[in-house]
Amino acid sequence: MEFKILKKSKKSRARLGLLKTPHGVVETPALVVVATQAAVKALTFEEVKKTKTQILISNAYHLHLRPGEKMVEKSGGLHKFMNWDKPLMTDSGGYQVFSLGFGADYKMGKIITEVRSKNQELSIKLGHQPKSLKITKDGVRFRSYVDGQEIFMTPKESMKIQKALGGDIIFAFDECTPPIADYDYTKKSMETTHRWAKECLAAFRNKEVRNKNNRQALYGIVQGGKFKDLRVESAKFIGSLPFDGFGIGGELGFNKKTMFKMLDWVMEVLPEGKPRHLLGNGHLEDMEKIFKSGVDTVDCIVPTHYARHGIAFTSQGRLDLNKKELLNDKKPVDKNCDCYVCQTYSRSYLSHLFRAREIAPLSLLTFHNLYFFNSFVEKIRERIKREII
Amino acid sequence: MEFKILKKSKKSRARLGLLKTPHGVVETPALVVVATQAAVKALTFEEVKKTKTQILISNAYHLHLRPGEKMVEKSGGLHKFMNWDKPLMTDSGGYQVFSLGFGADYKMGKIITEVRSKNQELSIKLGHQPKSLKITKDGVRFRSYVDGQEIFMTPKESMKIQKALGGDIIFAFDECTPPIADYDYTKKSMETTHRWAKECLAAFRNKEVRNKNNRQALYGIVQGGKFKDLRVESAKFIGSLPFDGFGIGGELGFNKKTMFKMLDWVMEVLPEGKPRHLLGNGHLEDMEKIFKSGVDTVDCIVPTHYARHGIAFTSQGRLDLNKKELLNDKKPVDKNCDCYVCQTYSRSYLSHLFRAREIAPLSLLTFHNLYFFNSFVEKIRERIKREII
Repeated sequence: MEFKILKKSKKSRARLGLLKTPHGVVETPALVVVATQAAVKALTFEEVKKTKTQILISNAYHLHLRPGEKMVEKSGGLHKFMNWDKPLMTDSGGYQVFSLGFGADYKMGKIITEVRSKNQELSIKLGHQPKSLKITKDGVRFRSYVDGQEIFMTPKESMKIQKALGGDIIFAFDECTPPIADYDYTKKSMETTHRWAKECLAAFRNKEVRNKNNRQALYGIVQGGKFKDLRVESAKFIGSLPFDGFGIGGELGFNKKTMFKMLDWVMEVLPEGKPRHLLGNGHLEDMEKIFKSGVDTVDCIVPTHYARHGIAFTSQGRLDLNKKELLNDKKPVDKNCDCYVCQTYSRSYLSHLFRAREIAPLSLLTFHNLYFFNSFVEKIRERIKREII
Repeated sequence: MEFKILKKSKKSRARLGLLKTPHGVVETPALVVVATQAAVKALTFEEVKKTKTQILISNAYHLHLRPGEKMVEKSGGLHKFMNWDKPLMTDSGGYQVFSLGFGADYKMGKIITEVRSKNQELSIKLGHQPKSLKITKDGVRFRSYVDGQEIFMTPKESMKIQKALGGDIIFAFDECTPPIADYDYTKKSMETTHRWAKECLAAFRNKEVRNKNNRQALYGIVQGGKFKDLRVESAKFIGSLPFDGFGIGGELGFNKKTMFKMLDWVMEVLPEGKPRHLLGNGHLEDMEKIFKSGVDTVDCIVPTHYARHGIAFTSQGRLDLNKKELLNDKKPVDKNCDCYVCQTYSRSYLSHLFRAREIAPLSLLTFHNLYFFNSFVEKIRERIKREII
């Protein structure tokens, strides 16, 4: 993989770049579209390709449980298995350690549900363990939600899985620290992530488990929660290791202010020449600020998830297609959008389909939202180019 | 509308024809693809058009309840509303009188569930009424499943609705007689259907409720259950009225032997020059026999409904993609199929997606099944042409 910075903004840390992968070039800043289980929910890949999507991210944890990386490997790898011949990332499963662990215990929703964890400020302390999984110094023990089998996920195992899957960019296995963890928990969790980062690098370089085509890139993940000294320490440590790029992790969508502060701390420290990926964050209203902080790529379920719930993103704001009023609205979802859904269907028709619980509108609105998000990011690239931001 | 018979088989009653509608020509025999709520479930119309689908059928009953025919009319009619510019039928709602009435009471599943009504032979007698709706001589009274509002559907009302919707071919409002109705019930029900047929014709010709473009065709519906004298009487009566074509109604999928006998009785009597449509029946294994009986078009939920349950139709028979064994099967769904799904994806990948409860495989398999069914019927047309059947 090669990362070329074409232009650096003089007004912010934003950069315009090209991420060259074995499956094509990604123009950055870019949205990485989520395809957790080797599918973008509600779309075929023929459709995904028409949404200006440049790169996808699948999930090693979910694919390990089902259908299993060995099966995918036998099919010729994830690209071939799902018929996506463009750039592809896989996430390591570190986030799932959070979401199925403390995330579930404390009902801390991600951006998905927009549930926030109120009155739980720093309630996870050193020594605490989530109910349904056990985090040890070597890895995470849990049961498969598919067949109940006990699994022990380690950095080495995650590398093995991700090599078998064969994504162009893979991520180190980390502990995604809960946002309500206190300083001591966060520090220890960060140290675990750091130790695992080195183990991932070792396993990644180990030829025994090396991916055949040998052209994968590995990103390390910065943790450290909401604490400045820890974030800086983590960025320094992870930034000093020979990773090809860096993920910025931690469930930080809970508090936007903290997230942007954190991004500043981290970007100040990370080596400039390597790509940076913000994991699981990318609300439309934050996008420009995120990229201005120096992030090159983000992955986010917002466009696809909201689409399935009837929420369209438009140049005029959000639009809830479940609403009865829209039944009589013959305008397109967004009059300023040139996607085929906006060129073809009315709000009225889509609203009818959502209200009638049809399946087709899930595809149609996912298409629009992805097209809209990708166009939105495209415009940000244009603005960096023209030195506006 | 014009119906032109190009060729009559010498070996059966099969005919090759052209059904010319204001929105294009349908080569018959043809499968009419179900789009009940103004959408083919799990597909966009861009996709539907690539499945060799020639004509759709939507449902006046469902569209009356949601979103309402007035709204559709204001959008420029059903074609424009749903962006389907090819031939389109609407069903009258007669079948729903059965399925939501006695069908529900006796748990008589349609082909959908493949439940049969055992030990209920002829248990509906003269004077019986279903629990949740009331069938009077003038119409059917029931409550909307959408908002609980009381609705009285009459032949005239059904015509009004279908004119507002604006399908190319519309159907008379009938009572779809339950297959377990005894002789007396069936006779009286048939007489109701006959009276309503005349009322539909009158309303259809009434300029006050005439569709603007004035180019719709109206099909009458033959009932008479499983009783030969009633079926013959109904075919004679309905056949003598100035309909543009004929539907053959009644829930007859319960007993295939009866269905084929019934088709023989009816086809013997119906005027030859007009098109005949078998309502709601079209299992793949029956298709050739149905068309050999002299039917020109069938509508059937089998290809789309089964697809959503992971069942593929192939040249080697049915294939259940939910099965674990298929996870390792790299072959396409059907090696003899040239649809894009079979050219692109493996059984393995589709099986993974079904097992992972993704949405995309519903679209992918619906696409294949429709393509497969339409190709199957295409071959039947070819065989009639070449005088094989």
